Amino acid sequence: MQINWLDQIIWNEQGLVPTISQDIETKKVLMLAWMNREALQLTVQQQIAVYWSRSRKKLWFKGEESGQIQYVKDIRLDCDSDVILLLVEQIGVACHTGRHNCFFQQYQDGQWVTVESVITDPADLYSK
Amino acid sequence: MQINWLDQIIWNEQGLVPTISQDIETKKVLMLAWMNREALQLTVQQQIAVYWSRSRKKLWFKGEESGQIQYVKDIRLDCDSDVILLLVEQIGVACHTGRHNCFFQQYQDGQWVTVESVITDPADLYSK
Repeated sequence: MQINWLDQIIWNEQGLVPTISQDIETKKVLMLAWMNREALQLTVQQQIAVYWSRSRKKLWFKGEESGQIQYVKDIRLDCDSDVILLLVEQIGVACHTGRHNCFFQQYQDGQWVTVESVITDPADLYSK
Repeated sequence: MQINWLDQIIWNEQGLVPTISQDIETKKVLMLAWMNREALQLTVQQQIAVYWSRSRKKLWFKGEESGQIQYVKDIRLDCDSDVILLLVEQIGVACHTGRHNCFFQQYQDGQWVTVESVITDPADLYSK
């Protein structure tokens, strides 16, 4: 009997799996968030990224407030079945700071230096 | 007073931070592993990726057995300071299965299908 695709995933003690999103066009890594079973099921069904917000303890439909939706084009699982990679079409910016992606702090000589600029004012992202 | 760059990172309850590695040339996401403070310090000092192996509970000098070293070219920290992204020059293959990267299982109609082939026989990687 074939094991259900959701049961093949090794969920952590909190029932979550780390999920990387990557822009399918620019190939930039956008962010890392977490999914539970329901979030991944919804992501597959709706083809938009749905995560589990660990801080708010609820499903997080990426872009529901900001409009910065991720259309999911490809879903990958790693060799240990405990990490997911989404290849996405990112609408607008991925980061809540208004930057293209979340990895804008670069290590330079013992410091973290911000090397990417704000594209969209966060006040505009969350004013709706 | 400036906070030490290592103290700016939000380490999880186990003192670890998830670390994504990405091939600096092909831009493919290679793998996700974990680092503790010492692993990150060594990575910065040696400019090769050093992780913390959660299964073996010890430092993991990536490639120490297999020769599949990751030369680190750029180290990024995300907006929440709890995820690291390494841009690396990957020697050989990143995955212990002998594939280029770890994300070779693709979701297709309720199944995980292997879509990338083995480049190097794992027996050759770990025979030294």
